[in-house]
Amino acid sequence: MLERYSILKDYSGPIDLKYMSYEELTCLSEEVRDYILEVTAKNGGHVGPGLGVVELTIALLRVFNPPSDVIVWDIGHQAYPWKILTDRKDKFPTLRQYGGISGFLRREESIYDAFGAGHSSTSISAALGFRKAMDILGQEGYVVAVIGDGAMTAGMAYEALNNAGHLRPNRFIVILNDNEMSISPNVGAISTYLSKILSGRFVQETRQRVKHLLEHVSGVSRIAKLTEEFLKGLISPGVIFEELGFNYIGPVNGHDLQALEKTLENIKGIEGPVLFHIYTKKGKGYRPAESDPVTWHGVAPYKRESGEFIKKPSPPTWTSVFGKAVVELAQMYPELVVITPAMKEGSGLVEFSQKFPERFFDVGIAEQHACTFAGGLAAQGLKPIASYYSTFLQRAYDQLIHDIALQNLHVVFAIDRGGLVGDDGPTHHGVFDLSYLRCIPNMVISAPKDEQELRDLLYTALNWHGPFAVRYPRGPAYGAPTQGFRELPVGSWEILTEGEDAVILAVGYTVYQALKAQEELRKEGIRVGVVNARFVKPMDENILSQLCTRYPLLVTVEDNVVMGGFGSGVLEWLSKRGILKKVLMIGVPDRFVDHGNQNLLRNLIGIDAEGIAKRVKEFVRSAKSELHIL
Amino acid sequence: MLERYSILKDYSGPIDLKYMSYEELTCLSEEVRDYILEVTAKNGGHVGPGLGVVELTIALLRVFNPPSDVIVWDIGHQAYPWKILTDRKDKFPTLRQYGGISGFLRREESIYDAFGAGHSSTSISAALGFRKAMDILGQEGYVVAVIGDGAMTAGMAYEALNNAGHLRPNRFIVILNDNEMSISPNVGAISTYLSKILSGRFVQETRQRVKHLLEHVSGVSRIAKLTEEFLKGLISPGVIFEELGFNYIGPVNGHDLQALEKTLENIKGIEGPVLFHIYTKKGKGYRPAESDPVTWHGVAPYKRESGEFIKKPSPPTWTSVFGKAVVELAQMYPELVVITPAMKEGSGLVEFSQKFPERFFDVGIAEQHACTFAGGLAAQGLKPIASYYSTFLQRAYDQLIHDIALQNLHVVFAIDRGGLVGDDGPTHHGVFDLSYLRCIPNMVISAPKDEQELRDLLYTALNWHGPFAVRYPRGPAYGAPTQGFRELPVGSWEILTEGEDAVILAVGYTVYQALKAQEELRKEGIRVGVVNARFVKPMDENILSQLCTRYPLLVTVEDNVVMGGFGSGVLEWLSKRGILKKVLMIGVPDRFVDHGNQNLLRNLIGIDAEGIAKRVKEFVRSAKSELHIL
Repeated sequence: MLERYSILKDYSGPIDLKYMSYEELTCLSEEVRDYILEVTAKNGGHVGPGLGVVELTIALLRVFNPPSDVIVWDIGHQAYPWKILTDRKDKFPTLRQYGGISGFLRREESIYDAFGAGHSSTSISAALGFRKAMDILGQEGYVVAVIGDGAMTAGMAYEALNNAGHLRPNRFIVILNDNEMSISPNVGAISTYLSKILSGRFVQETRQRVKHLLEHVSGVSRIAKLTEEFLKGLISPGVIFEELGFNYIGPVNGHDLQALEKTLENIKGIEGPVLFHIYTKKGKGYRPAESDPVTWHGVAPYKRESGEFIKKPSPPTWTSVFGKAVVELAQMYPELVVITPAMKEGSGLVEFSQKFPERFFDVGIAEQHACTFAGGLAAQGLKPIASYYSTFLQRAYDQLIHDIALQNLHVVFAIDRGGLVGDDGPTHHGVFDLSYLRCIPNMVISAPKDEQELRDLLYTALNWHGPFAVRYPRGPAYGAPTQGFRELPVGSWEILTEGEDAVILAVGYTVYQALKAQEELRKEGIRVGVVNARFVKPMDENILSQLCTRYPLLVTVEDNVVMGGFGSGVLEWLSKRGILKKVLMIGVPDRFVDHGNQNLLRNLIGIDAEGIAKRVKEFVRSAKSELHIL
Repeated sequence: MLERYSILKDYSGPIDLKYMSYEELTCLSEEVRDYILEVTAKNGGHVGPGLGVVELTIALLRVFNPPSDVIVWDIGHQAYPWKILTDRKDKFPTLRQYGGISGFLRREESIYDAFGAGHSSTSISAALGFRKAMDILGQEGYVVAVIGDGAMTAGMAYEALNNAGHLRPNRFIVILNDNEMSISPNVGAISTYLSKILSGRFVQETRQRVKHLLEHVSGVSRIAKLTEEFLKGLISPGVIFEELGFNYIGPVNGHDLQALEKTLENIKGIEGPVLFHIYTKKGKGYRPAESDPVTWHGVAPYKRESGEFIKKPSPPTWTSVFGKAVVELAQMYPELVVITPAMKEGSGLVEFSQKFPERFFDVGIAEQHACTFAGGLAAQGLKPIASYYSTFLQRAYDQLIHDIALQNLHVVFAIDRGGLVGDDGPTHHGVFDLSYLRCIPNMVISAPKDEQELRDLLYTALNWHGPFAVRYPRGPAYGAPTQGFRELPVGSWEILTEGEDAVILAVGYTVYQALKAQEELRKEGIRVGVVNARFVKPMDENILSQLCTRYPLLVTVEDNVVMGGFGSGVLEWLSKRGILKKVLMIGVPDRFVDHGNQNLLRNLIGIDAEGIAKRVKEFVRSAKSELHIL
């Protein structure tokens, strides 16, 4: 695939960049963009972010010397050019495929990937760690964090800036890559502020004139100089960063390679931490991505010529079922409001936000705030639905415990992307939530088996009186028709089939897999019951008691880690009642699961029909043979 | 007790305040301070914070009308005057005692406590929730958040400011109570910035003059007006808050009641959100507290006249054992560094910070950043110890998973205040950590039975190669002599006594309790073995196998919730191996535990020697009688 490129073809690593002319570098930039489009058109992936930072990547590799200089990319989905131009140009076609290279940065993958990331806003903290470690170890070298303007809305980035501004390290550079866009258009005052800087670029040019003038007006000058603050206000458009202890440089066009390099070279000599503000265009060089950066942030495979997506016919996603339900429910409940931490599109909330703008709150990448904000809304009598990806809810864990559950506030947590998410890999799998939620008092935790039950659980949640989580997977649901809403008794399970050898208690996605497994097992003479354990907490103690009487063996299945998950809950229940029963627990093992096709991963982990059938067969047979021996 | 006060004696609620003269209010302020000192001298508690906000509390209750106006106090440990002056003056002597009123705000306790809090920096988020709910519900009324300057270092506060600055609600006031101090003196650029505002108070007075002058110098004026930014820089010392969309007012002396009231009245008329910056003195009115605000933030009972603490002779605390060990270990390991999120004193790190200032990082109230910062330090080859209170580690949960465990970075988590903490109550109990950590791959989780083992586990952790948690309780240890450091095989348990009826697997604090219980049980003819399960993950599978063969019954004990905790881990292990065994799990039940004396709570929950003995006796007897029936 590389044969078609004049420069990239023979490119052997960052050292090559240092000997290229700007003409060659421009050609290389085009080739890198072309290569990214070729590969993502086949594999899907994050298109817009990488295309926006090709020049920046080249500039960083020419001005600095990684890995002895440390470059930390925030989130890492902007790092495709980095992967290509450091040491993975040949492996790049395996992007996001099982066994191939990750869609994010990964320390295991390359010495150039200083710090892995799939979640936003961690780069400044990590970079500051590198910086202080190098200071203590007496190591020279620069440390650079590259962070987007969207990631700047997260509290964590502010905590790190605040700490860095206090420590005032040298050779520490934060590059704020401003494309006025994270995944959705950014919200929040800091974004408005950054936009004002960009739109006020002329300030840059006039400020010297103003300063000059002031210096020649004696009376004013004297007073104006009274405080440093005054001058700072005049000198720097990035006053917030200056006040936080950073030297602010910028804004500079991030597609102007020569300007980038020149400024970075100058920055190397500045004492104290530097915030270098650049502006780039997301999707640069590919018209469909430039004109619709929201859609083209991350995409499925597409036709490169037209930008059309290659859609396989598939049922609506869980996300869209949620999105539709929440619009209908909002019509029934005027006090229903929805909060999302910057995941409007990803969480299926576009229609809701259009129909109910006053009741929709996109708070930016601010998971902690989103949760407690929802708590305040609930405390005053509204019915907030806090919409999170499972993996990002980890960021609001303390708030969920301390602000919501402890006060038993009625916040509904709509948890999307529960279970294995597929291509995005271990940074994004939502496989811990059942465990980390189950240990919190007052929590109700539920997972629907299908579309109608998702609707019913949301409805049930809205009629509840405390924290209530509804958790569903990424990807397509079943296309089953839905109608209306039905209130389900909280804590109730559903017996789907009866059997005699064993009973499978399945949660969420795994329910239909268990049903399929049951059919397979029946062919082999093994008859198992299947129960839809739609409530992980509280559990259906009546049904559980019956099952213990009726079946010799129990099987639990979940797309969550086995440690502390639903199966553990069943074991605890049995233990508390002194019931001795063999239980097979099927779930995600105690290790981080790599990226790859979602169903492939489910299969490898053994939580799909095939895996369930296989494990249950072994379990039943081994139990029978034990009996036989006895 | 109230009889001695001329005004407070007959005080019947906030309405009274509105009819008092300033002379009477001054007298009342003194009485409130006196009352706080009387009660905290007996009960202990947070002395400094409350004394600092007596005038502010009065001003808020006179200018606003809670509960229809909503006042949200950050953390809530500053709310003693609030409790006294709203509706709890009679109950105030029960402060922090079991069954008495909480040391923090609590919705269950009073309609005046709009939102509970024990953790920092949640108030702006919650207040914004109230504000938007009231807007949607068409409710009039103001919403006020009162937050300290220390709490402003937390990312969550920034997320909320950023969102509020974007939404620009009316009748929304954030009062920044600046005493240049959170628990420890604050660190971070934002604190420096606030200090500069305070020390630059004269800016206030001169800014009008400057503005006036500028307006009369035609050339400059014209250019200066080119951008709003310029003027803002000149007009407001709180430029950061202005840039974030707030109207900045201040700074105002927070002990000047009339100035507070006048300014608050004026603020009521301002459109858009307001940040009102006041400065107060922590411990105001009590000399020992004024002169040593760090110590007097929160204290044990004391002699009021002298400020001497009433110390019962007790062994060194776990915290101080940790503090001493870490100093010794730092001498052995030059690459050892320590990170604390604003808990230098509370975590026993004063000596370390003095002896190794270059290797000590107090990052401010910034739990998220602290964790990932430690990750960066580890990635570059240092041995960071991230020191957290268990309850605050919840704030770094995502970072622990995504930045540390996923990359298997060698960060040692020294987790203080694990288990029930006592008087601080449900916001501070560290009873979820074993559960929320156990489900994370790559984690090693340990808990020492005594002082020597704490040292040994820290040493073992430093010689490990991935994330390693050492978790220990609040309060006094045993005073056992300690010497040196011993490396323990990771995952190894220790058999302390042998028995025959059952074996108790105990974790951390509960180990000695189990030993005592064992002695009691022996007197009643029940012989149990006791095992120190010092590693919760990985577990000692060899010992566990042996125990299963040797004992008919297993008992697990932990000062963590039963759900998903250590006991669950044992059940999972048994289930995986198909071993059927009766297991009694003793731990914290699935509800939030109130405040009260630490040992009293342990007793009530049944995790002390008495509780363990009682439960084990029942367990053994009931198992025997079952056998008998068979």
